Amino acid sequence: MAAEINGSSPGTLQSICYERGSLRLLDQTRLPLETVYLDIKDSSDGWTAIRDMVVRGAPAIAIAAALSLAIEVFNLDFSGTPEDAASYLAKKLEYLVSSRPTAVNLSDAAEKLRSLVLKIAETANEAQTVFQAYVDAAETMLVDDVAANKAIGFHGASHLGSHLENMQKISVLTHCNTGSLATAGYGTALGVIRALQTEGWLEKAFCTETRPFNQGSRLTAFELVHDQIPATLIADSAVAALMKAGVVNAVVVGADRIAANGDTANKIGTYSVALSAYHHGIQFYVAAPITSIDLSISSGDQIVIEERSEKELLHSDGGRGKQVAASGISVWNPAFDVTPARLITAIFTEKGVIRKSSEDAFDIKGFIESAK
Amino acid sequence: MAAEINGSSPGTLQSICYERGSLRLLDQTRLPLETVYLDIKDSSDGWTAIRDMVVRGAPAIAIAAALSLAIEVFNLDFSGTPEDAASYLAKKLEYLVSSRPTAVNLSDAAEKLRSLVLKIAETANEAQTVFQAYVDAAETMLVDDVAANKAIGFHGASHLGSHLENMQKISVLTHCNTGSLATAGYGTALGVIRALQTEGWLEKAFCTETRPFNQGSRLTAFELVHDQIPATLIADSAVAALMKAGVVNAVVVGADRIAANGDTANKIGTYSVALSAYHHGIQFYVAAPITSIDLSISSGDQIVIEERSEKELLHSDGGRGKQVAASGISVWNPAFDVTPARLITAIFTEKGVIRKSSEDAFDIKGFIESAK
Repeated sequence: MAAEINGSSPGTLQSICYERGSLRLLDQTRLPLETVYLDIKDSSDGWTAIRDMVVRGAPAIAIAAALSLAIEVFNLDFSGTPEDAASYLAKKLEYLVSSRPTAVNLSDAAEKLRSLVLKIAETANEAQTVFQAYVDAAETMLVDDVAANKAIGFHGASHLGSHLENMQKISVLTHCNTGSLATAGYGTALGVIRALQTEGWLEKAFCTETRPFNQGSRLTAFELVHDQIPATLIADSAVAALMKAGVVNAVVVGADRIAANGDTANKIGTYSVALSAYHHGIQFYVAAPITSIDLSISSGDQIVIEERSEKELLHSDGGRGKQVAASGISVWNPAFDVTPARLITAIFTEKGVIRKSSEDAFDIKGFIESAK
Repeated sequence: MAAEINGSSPGTLQSICYERGSLRLLDQTRLPLETVYLDIKDSSDGWTAIRDMVVRGAPAIAIAAALSLAIEVFNLDFSGTPEDAASYLAKKLEYLVSSRPTAVNLSDAAEKLRSLVLKIAETANEAQTVFQAYVDAAETMLVDDVAANKAIGFHGASHLGSHLENMQKISVLTHCNTGSLATAGYGTALGVIRALQTEGWLEKAFCTETRPFNQGSRLTAFELVHDQIPATLIADSAVAALMKAGVVNAVVVGADRIAANGDTANKIGTYSVALSAYHHGIQFYVAAPITSIDLSISSGDQIVIEERSEKELLHSDGGRGKQVAASGISVWNPAFDVTPARLITAIFTEKGVIRKSSEDAFDIKGFIESAK
């Protein structure tokens, strides 16, 4: 893979730069100190980039994998039947899934693409038709994800803008990274902040460090500086003091999973931010695509909290640096927590804003049905 | 200064090891990876140890400075008048204050000791009487601080023990470092945890990382491991999730300053912990000596929040490691926050437990007067 330095282009940061025949991925392992894009020529380059964490975030990984294979087959000199083409793609997709075997999003996407090409192969007259269908499908994943994020941003910013009242502009706090670096582009919660900035309604963004892996200081701060959005970084523990100082008007965070009642699992610390917001009378919003909603889960109580490595707390720099904590101390390092619907004002999706049906819950099923 | 490695002695960690004629200070700059004590032979060694942050924490610095001069004069071959002795001591005290000119506690202590020796010199017949009075006064500082901490620990543990009800043992969360490493020994909030452990009432201690300077992971975790107290380290942002999990029975924290109504300034993040405790119905206690109370301040609103270096958030390891955050991001890094009295259950002091006089405030003045 050849590396090139990207100039400080204006506009929104892009982690996946794609046009038919060309794919470049922003190397997130070198952020925030270096902005380096890697040229991805084929699925082998894609596999390596995913394994080496050049690209991260569930939607971004799946899309980067799919596109790396689209690049490979775009100019492929292939002599075989449509069935051979489908088989070629299926094998490569299986290979790509092995780059991060636990990434459910990646294996789901690979399975969908495999089914598609097998179906196309049944009626296609030549291999090229199968490849073309694959490239179209992979490109659609990218376009759809960015479009969904922009719609989330639009609905979120419109909602916040309609509540500006006497204020000219508002300041928004976010937690973790939910921007261009975690998605195909634009972002969810960070997309709302970008949309507010575009509308001229944003006074300032506040981002937390997001311990222990520092997604806030490493990635969100980088995106905000890149997009020239006025922004301030704080320690997670300073959220309550910041709110008490009266300088935060709203909180917008992303979601790993949303239960049918609106209870939301998200990066550890989100629940703590929600409690502080509730106590200070500050509106607290979740921004996420409809795909984050899991109607099979009735409430957050059913979500099992996954634990991550002790090393993230014992060593500096999220486990990558030198030892900081005393040897022999035990550690509890949950990956996320659950914010009860009660503490959430509304949920921003690409289909619109989900409002409360009662003080303690959202009727998300009803919203999805009416949005169809 | 000669260095020696301290064996893993049983019992409470000692950062200041003193007996008449011998002073050793635990080198806190090498914690938690190395436990090294430095031999302090005179005020010059004391000055260097303070400047190099071998010893930290307001009470500990003042006492270490005073004792380093006590070591120097203990065996001093001095031919001069009592006035000469007082003048010698006054000069050395002035020199010691210059090791950390902004440490109010240190300059206050030096001023008190200077006044004492000048007064003694007025009636003393020989220089040795003045030196002996100085040594006695310096030793009293050490003894008094440890005794006050042990009394705080006793009152706190007794109060918590009397509320055990159906529980055999309780688990306590603390924030920052308030132990042997910040005081002359034993500690305030950590002293309460030590006393609970001694009584057999402690199930487990939880300590936060305490970002951005990591006093929790570096120092409190070290003390807990050293004293063989069952303990678990968590990220500051995991406090609310931990409380929701139902495994914390009480919170005990220290105090930088307590206003007349009980509002308490303490390490950034304390207010956030208090909000979470309040929301989960968990008792929240402040443990501090009476000297931390400032009756001239009627409420926490009058306490100005000091800000610390941006570097603590921009670089790993509290500012000492490599750059983590994006260049160009602005930072808000308050040193502490104010927890309103409303969120505090009671205050543990060496004179006993200060209980609420109303839902929102403590009558601290009344408590101090009745305790006299």
